[in-house]
Amino acid sequence: MSSIQKGHRFWYIPDGYIPRESLGKVESHEAICLLNCYEEEASIVITVYFEDREPLEQIEARLEGRRTKHIRTSELQKDGERIPKGVPYAIEVVSSVPVILQYTRVDSTQPANALMSVIGFPLS
Amino acid sequence: MSSIQKGHRFWYIPDGYIPRESLGKVESHEAICLLNCYEEEASIVITVYFEDREPLEQIEARLEGRRTKHIRTSELQKDGERIPKGVPYAIEVVSSVPVILQYTRVDSTQPANALMSVIGFPLS
Amino acid sequence: MSSIQKGHRFWYIPDGYIPRESLGKVESHEAICLLNCYEEEASIVITVYFEDREPLEQIEARLEGRRTKHIRTSELQKDGERIPKGVPYAIEVVSSVPVILQYTRVDSTQPANALMSVIGFPLS
Amino acid sequence: MSSIQKGHRFWYIPDGYIPRESLGKVESHEAICLLNCYEEEASIVITVYFEDREPLEQIEARLEGRRTKHIRTSELQKDGERIPKGVPYAIEVVSSVPVILQYTRVDSTQPANALMSVIGFPLS
Repeated sequence: MSSIQKGHRFWYIPDGYIPRESLGKVESHEAICLLNCYEEEASIVITVYFEDREPLEQIEARLEGRRTKHIRTSELQKDGERIPKGVPYAIEVVSSVPVILQYTRVDSTQPANALMSVIGFPLS
Repeated sequence: MSSIQKGHRFWYIPDGYIPRESLGKVESHEAICLLNCYEEEASIVITVYFEDREPLEQIEARLEGRRTKHIRTSELQKDGERIPKGVPYAIEVVSSVPVILQYTRVDSTQPANALMSVIGFPLS
Repeated sequence: MSSIQKGHRFWYIPDGYIPRESLGKVESHEAICLLNCYEEEASIVITVYFEDREPLEQIEARLEGRRTKHIRTSELQKDGERIPKGVPYAIEVVSSVPVILQYTRVDSTQPANALMSVIGFPLS
Repeated sequence: MSSIQKGHRFWYIPDGYIPRESLGKVESHEAICLLNCYEEEASIVITVYFEDREPLEQIEARLEGRRTKHIRTSELQKDGERIPKGVPYAIEVVSSVPVILQYTRVDSTQPANALMSVIGFPLS
């Protein structure tokens, strides 16, 4: 097994969007779900791209070895700056060790939730 | 980093469909979400394929460097011709620089939204 | 461009399921959405796999050149035999020319639709 | 055909989550949908990763040749231990023969269902 690389170090999600409203029991949110199959802890660096301004860079996170972590994008911050709601953005995730990334959005703008999910786009 | 190509120049989405109706607070729509990680602006050329007629070709768009752009397919046009609602179609996106593409549909045909999303299919 | 192969000849969808009920305005259905970027017509052969019986093989379809086709799985048939509703199945699609395949399910089991979509899994 | 490998032996799903509630007619659930195109039966070994504890390892399943199997994650167990509801987790699936894997979540936390699906992330 040691010869197979379990994941990638670079991942991309072009369609990021945190809905403004939440009418359901569940709050509208997005999650970046990471899986680290290695023993070693992963250092994560996230860049957020926007349509009409410079990217928000160097957002940091950590992921222990042999663990998953489902990070809400609304909780990401760099020096107190967060991703605004209701604004289209895109995400780059760079990890120090190979990981696997899935992105999911729960939209409860209306009382009935809507769900979408994609495996991120990896670079190899 | 400069040796890794950040994305692809050719992307495909076979399931395009703009719902005819919108009953929710949000209008039914689709978006082609592009991410350009390069400094250079990307020139985009889109072809729309149909089931029973010749493709609509040479629809142009632009995407600045280090930016994302979420383009509604209903806004695409070539000499005033747009993609009709309620008709199955497919999309080819060709970019002058490598980009990453995600496609999302918001269907508010009924008061409760439905969502779906895929990373496009790239050619390499 | 002629040196890039636009798609694949073998595609797989493990999660097929035609919901039994339709309470919304839209009937519950699934679609296999194909895109053929070549001039040549594609001959399609579909195999449907089940959980507890032999596969339904040699279901045929055709797709013109430079066209898309969104095929409802409920319309597939071999000698009058169709995919039953409410039964888990999986699909293999083999094409004579490379194509791109996306699978989408519209579930209107309840008055509010639910949507899901994936790009099929290609073999290369 | 015998020279093409129909699938992969290692598959990953980072975003696992079994909703706590079910208000719709359909119970909230997730399914790992496997397709085995080979004649040979596949021996499946599943590892479940969590955010804050050691993985649950060596969960076993079997999949006959030329069959699909849609396994509810709530039914997976190892010595009587199951995946708890309402907890983020991730899944690794290892198969003795190449298979194709799709993951789907049906969320009926609210009376209107929500759906999401992804093709798993394969290692090659």
